Amino acid sequence: MATTSDRPPARPVTLTEERYRSIRELSEQLVAPLSDADATLQSMPDASPAKWHLAHTTWFFETFVLRDNCPGYRLFNESWPFLFNSYYEAEGPRHARPMRGMLSRPSLKDVLAYRRHVDSYVERVLGRADLATLIELGLNHEQQHQELLLTDLKHALSLNPLKPAYSAPVRRPTARGSSGWHTCEGGVMRVGHAGEGFAFDNEGPSHEVVVEPFALASGLVTNQEWADFIADGGYRDPSLWLSDGWAWVQASAIDAPLYWREDEAFTLAGMQHREPDAPVTHVSFYEADAFATWAGHRLPTEFEWETAARGHDPAGGVQLDEAAAVHPSGSQSLFGDGWQWTRSAYLPYPRFRPAAGAVGEYNGKFMSGQCVLKGASCATPRGHARATYRNFFPPEKRWQFTGVRLAKDL
Amino acid sequence: MATTSDRPPARPVTLTEERYRSIRELSEQLVAPLSDADATLQSMPDASPAKWHLAHTTWFFETFVLRDNCPGYRLFNESWPFLFNSYYEAEGPRHARPMRGMLSRPSLKDVLAYRRHVDSYVERVLGRADLATLIELGLNHEQQHQELLLTDLKHALSLNPLKPAYSAPVRRPTARGSSGWHTCEGGVMRVGHAGEGFAFDNEGPSHEVVVEPFALASGLVTNQEWADFIADGGYRDPSLWLSDGWAWVQASAIDAPLYWREDEAFTLAGMQHREPDAPVTHVSFYEADAFATWAGHRLPTEFEWETAARGHDPAGGVQLDEAAAVHPSGSQSLFGDGWQWTRSAYLPYPRFRPAAGAVGEYNGKFMSGQCVLKGASCATPRGHARATYRNFFPPEKRWQFTGVRLAKDL
Amino acid sequence: MATTSDRPPARPVTLTEERYRSIRELSEQLVAPLSDADATLQSMPDASPAKWHLAHTTWFFETFVLRDNCPGYRLFNESWPFLFNSYYEAEGPRHARPMRGMLSRPSLKDVLAYRRHVDSYVERVLGRADLATLIELGLNHEQQHQELLLTDLKHALSLNPLKPAYSAPVRRPTARGSSGWHTCEGGVMRVGHAGEGFAFDNEGPSHEVVVEPFALASGLVTNQEWADFIADGGYRDPSLWLSDGWAWVQASAIDAPLYWREDEAFTLAGMQHREPDAPVTHVSFYEADAFATWAGHRLPTEFEWETAARGHDPAGGVQLDEAAAVHPSGSQSLFGDGWQWTRSAYLPYPRFRPAAGAVGEYNGKFMSGQCVLKGASCATPRGHARATYRNFFPPEKRWQFTGVRLAKDL
Amino acid sequence: MATTSDRPPARPVTLTEERYRSIRELSEQLVAPLSDADATLQSMPDASPAKWHLAHTTWFFETFVLRDNCPGYRLFNESWPFLFNSYYEAEGPRHARPMRGMLSRPSLKDVLAYRRHVDSYVERVLGRADLATLIELGLNHEQQHQELLLTDLKHALSLNPLKPAYSAPVRRPTARGSSGWHTCEGGVMRVGHAGEGFAFDNEGPSHEVVVEPFALASGLVTNQEWADFIADGGYRDPSLWLSDGWAWVQASAIDAPLYWREDEAFTLAGMQHREPDAPVTHVSFYEADAFATWAGHRLPTEFEWETAARGHDPAGGVQLDEAAAVHPSGSQSLFGDGWQWTRSAYLPYPRFRPAAGAVGEYNGKFMSGQCVLKGASCATPRGHARATYRNFFPPEKRWQFTGVRLAKDL
Repeated sequence: MATTSDRPPARPVTLTEERYRSIRELSEQLVAPLSDADATLQSMPDASPAKWHLAHTTWFFETFVLRDNCPGYRLFNESWPFLFNSYYEAEGPRHARPMRGMLSRPSLKDVLAYRRHVDSYVERVLGRADLATLIELGLNHEQQHQELLLTDLKHALSLNPLKPAYSAPVRRPTARGSSGWHTCEGGVMRVGHAGEGFAFDNEGPSHEVVVEPFALASGLVTNQEWADFIADGGYRDPSLWLSDGWAWVQASAIDAPLYWREDEAFTLAGMQHREPDAPVTHVSFYEADAFATWAGHRLPTEFEWETAARGHDPAGGVQLDEAAAVHPSGSQSLFGDGWQWTRSAYLPYPRFRPAAGAVGEYNGKFMSGQCVLKGASCATPRGHARATYRNFFPPEKRWQFTGVRLAKDL
Repeated sequence: MATTSDRPPARPVTLTEERYRSIRELSEQLVAPLSDADATLQSMPDASPAKWHLAHTTWFFETFVLRDNCPGYRLFNESWPFLFNSYYEAEGPRHARPMRGMLSRPSLKDVLAYRRHVDSYVERVLGRADLATLIELGLNHEQQHQELLLTDLKHALSLNPLKPAYSAPVRRPTARGSSGWHTCEGGVMRVGHAGEGFAFDNEGPSHEVVVEPFALASGLVTNQEWADFIADGGYRDPSLWLSDGWAWVQASAIDAPLYWREDEAFTLAGMQHREPDAPVTHVSFYEADAFATWAGHRLPTEFEWETAARGHDPAGGVQLDEAAAVHPSGSQSLFGDGWQWTRSAYLPYPRFRPAAGAVGEYNGKFMSGQCVLKGASCATPRGHARATYRNFFPPEKRWQFTGVRLAKDL
Repeated sequence: MATTSDRPPARPVTLTEERYRSIRELSEQLVAPLSDADATLQSMPDASPAKWHLAHTTWFFETFVLRDNCPGYRLFNESWPFLFNSYYEAEGPRHARPMRGMLSRPSLKDVLAYRRHVDSYVERVLGRADLATLIELGLNHEQQHQELLLTDLKHALSLNPLKPAYSAPVRRPTARGSSGWHTCEGGVMRVGHAGEGFAFDNEGPSHEVVVEPFALASGLVTNQEWADFIADGGYRDPSLWLSDGWAWVQASAIDAPLYWREDEAFTLAGMQHREPDAPVTHVSFYEADAFATWAGHRLPTEFEWETAARGHDPAGGVQLDEAAAVHPSGSQSLFGDGWQWTRSAYLPYPRFRPAAGAVGEYNGKFMSGQCVLKGASCATPRGHARATYRNFFPPEKRWQFTGVRLAKDL
Repeated sequence: MATTSDRPPARPVTLTEERYRSIRELSEQLVAPLSDADATLQSMPDASPAKWHLAHTTWFFETFVLRDNCPGYRLFNESWPFLFNSYYEAEGPRHARPMRGMLSRPSLKDVLAYRRHVDSYVERVLGRADLATLIELGLNHEQQHQELLLTDLKHALSLNPLKPAYSAPVRRPTARGSSGWHTCEGGVMRVGHAGEGFAFDNEGPSHEVVVEPFALASGLVTNQEWADFIADGGYRDPSLWLSDGWAWVQASAIDAPLYWREDEAFTLAGMQHREPDAPVTHVSFYEADAFATWAGHRLPTEFEWETAARGHDPAGGVQLDEAAAVHPSGSQSLFGDGWQWTRSAYLPYPRFRPAAGAVGEYNGKFMSGQCVLKGASCATPRGHARATYRNFFPPEKRWQFTGVRLAKDL
């Protein structure tokens, strides 16, 4: 039959294949509620259209797995790599990032066809040992874009005066975090990824650091606590703020977390009443730092956080399990609900070297001007996080589900 | 039946009704080749999504005809006036212009339903004498937006690296304009609109001006002539340029008309070979003025142009007749192909007074910082133009079909 | 003696020599109260340091009179033309305008030596008939810069929180303008400069225009009237403003004339109580136009103003007679106190052609995006103004002594 | 005599008094070659006028020593604190930083009088034990501003097309740094200031860190090596750059260190031939990092540098000894010539707490978005530097004497 040559021969489903399919399918489930127009929106240069996320993650497999390693593979469309390369200089020129929202063509339907095409070829080589690391990288890359797809979409929908919902609200009881502290004695501690299992290059090499005795809050800062900070003049008192943060507050007229409006907040389910006990999210590093100063505490370092997280289940807490209007609701886990700003700059670990070639641009070149975040958020696909994971964003950004866990010296 | 109350009772089709329907239908034909995503694109603050044009023109009828004059009329959607008011301050706050591209909702389909709803009510009152002027204003307003819809769309599609086509190219022979001149003896001339027929308020009052003897080129400047200007260093010689124009050329690195690339130009039919004899379009006032200086001539004043155009058929030349990939191809008419920059600033005529109320904002408040253009373009709906018509744009804008007709003193 | 060759031989003082000397001396008197640091200040790209004005006007004589017409003349300093050319493209590259404030060297003293050097050579050729027009142009050019020197300096001093005075206040009684109107029957009127006497090229050719019957206010709008406009919400009502003006008011948070602060205004004599009956100055075209709309009148056209000014003494009213802290105080003259915004765009008159060469850049290339002002201000050297004079500034500028004279249709 | 009450009674000159006087005098020697206009220049918001540095350092003593601690002291001028507060929010509103160049008044002479006034009062309390720390802070603060005064002035003079010299060139033989390496075995090391002697608050608390075995270049990167980097396409190869650095290179069209022009460089002695063996300076962190990548090495961390510097004389190398046209010329010292970019972000040390009150704003609030630099430059007053010193600037700044010392892993 004609399909014989179109589709790969049946192979027994391995764990990898199931994993590949389920991750790839989640991306498509995430766009199921979207129209072609919804999937084309780009609300700011930081964000990308949902359609672009679908295509870019596919380009990643097509380029680094198929084109580079599967002789005879022909590109789905020769013009598309220019459109869907994100930032890999070694891959040549590319469509300007702020112009991604101009891509009404290809349509969402065309992009889904692209996915099926690439999937059919990748699935044929899932068993190749030499490609296992690259494919696993591609899957973790796709998971990162699943989170971005949701946060970028939330930002775009928030700018529509109709405040439309991505989907119906998820009803989940709000769990108030305990007000206790995890304590840690400190000492010379080993941090960073080593051993089995996937990790990004920026999580290693594993190395030793000195950590002084400290405590980490067992709960995230809540909406109610943030409201108290506001009521106490937190956004108007320069003594609480880093200099750059104060300049940002004034220039951007910041006086509340992103998406707050009166007693409500914009969510993926539209405008919703704000739960006082739920963790605050959508705050910048500057806000997180000012809040910590106001509260008489401080932000943790990334190494304190990692040390404290040992033995905690990285798959715990509120994380992304299925396509839904995710929203933080609180738990006792160190992971989930919101990424947690640390006071650590995003810098290379000792003896860190990026990989050779275009894939080496994945993380290393961003090690300047950004802050490390730890944990995971309600939009992080469950299974993606771990204690050594280093998320990073510039200090003024707020469109991710970013929250605050306090620390203090002992 | 339920439909009885939903739809107006049948009335004999009058000229006005036919006219109303045919103009309203043309707008919908223009978007027929577009996906919802295409119709949502906004490429710059000056431009609007196709979908928005469809809705805004409908809002105009709904607001000024139905809401203000038809007791009992209920808005199609109470939230939409905020979205689809363009610039009428008297109508209250409105969605920020640069954010129109965020309107993935309402969908194109919803907007078309809005049109049907409003049309059904307007058609019931087409016979009301007290509304004739307002409705006629609404139709002329819609025609203006038809042209903007095409030029805004062209701009958006041009930013897609795939250079997609709106529709197949229209094959029309290029007609080289004659190289002769229309001469005029000058004197005290009456200009501006008076008498029967629709005109915008900015075309009156009719008044007298002194015009000195002059000649107006019988053809528009062609692509070949523009190529000669470029080859002669036209974009590099400050002595040819107004001071603001030279600053613009340098700051924006301008060296050719918008959409030119090598021997091609982007058109509504995608990248196409450039016809040397076709009229040049997509040039700014600054470029038009520099070209005229280089050619040893000058731009006409709006009054010279109007005087010369008397007796010419405003429905002549290349204008918009149906939804198609319109493109200038040249003719002997003073009208059509490209709007023609004049050296006249867009200012009020003597004794001009804007109308009372929101409709008074239509034209008067823009009488600052803009230049008058005369004629019509290949994207102007045939029947919309006339000799007294005053189109206007800021001197650096190029995304309209704007061209050059030279003048000289006698 | 050595001085024989250094200085030109004595010649009988002619009218021209006296005129040359007195104009050149006024410039130096104007900087007498200034330190070298004062004379180096540049507060914005629109403004220039006092020192630069002194040098640029001298460069004008050195370049166009001496270098071009006096064989054997050697430049005072070969590096300085780069510094002191303002905008003459034909004279080659030049120091970037916004960087003029970096010229701590040459010192004010060096610049004064430059003036003496150039004066000594120009004075030798004052009798040459072939240079009379150029020298007269240079003197009128210098007078324009005397006014700019004072207004630029006022702006710079205003930004010093100490609000320093240029010199002691001039005590002059405030003369309330009459509230009457000059009426004019209209008709075909001849405007523009013709005949004897110096005029800039932009004042001609003389030509005919149609003017409809109108009236021109006999007094300028006063501070009190402006305060009434403010109190009535003038700066908060968009219906009074041109669209560009309203955008400017909002973006720049404009709510009063430049230099107003509570009941005072910054003047060249420091902060001073505001005289209610004195003419308002330091308003933009946008403000002038909004005020006129609020008052139920309009701004005059440049031709109405010129027609009305026939027979009025252009040397009347409050104008600059000596180096002092000039300030508007009101009079019955059409001239003086403040330049008067018209609703006329600054455009070429019919058959206008700029002169050949660099001097041709004097006026013509600025005929875009600016408004014509008529009259003269308290900082205009008396003798410089005339009815045909066309001053011009962009519509948002306020640092000149710009005021409002209303007009109305008859 | 009248002077009795004007000047404090003679006291035996103590070490502190000599130190106070010599530091205060150096500031005034630095401005001796400057005119009032020179001393008023501000070339960019980052820089301040020389005059302002003189006054601000004096304001620091007047405010924190005299006003706060000497009952009965009356301010020299009540309006000046508004002018000369730099960034202390707790001290209330202040003159906008980018407007410091508008301060032609007070004159340089007035500012020098202010210094004498304040000095006379401070000298009376030099012996007070409770003020010793504050006064020492004031002196170290003044030394920092001495360096800024020179670098700000260099920047301002560089923008004058005449390329004027601050003073005659210092003729010093260029010493080529050795091409060897200082090696360090690593381990748990104690870093930060502890014990006797002045240090800024950001240098403590002393704490332990893990340092892995590394080597630090014994010489700074030279002009010749930088020229090789350029010749090898260093500024055109994105693979060498951090992402933010590459964006900066492209947006700002960077292709050489600041002040380079052909074979020359602008110096405080005007344009001078570039010595190939002298250390390169005026490079940004981004350039330093890209160079290190190109060279196959990396930048040191601040802790590596501090560890390596133990036992080195912080008063060695080329540093500022007297008012002169300082310029890097190379030496074997770890200190001097140019500040050395590290890859360490400027962050608080464990248990760091800013002091209470306005003085607490000195350092802590800047711990965001900046990089640590170690060593000292040719413009650093000799005696000011030490191994624990943490200088800091944003990664794109280049107007300081900033250079590169490479490191590598062992």
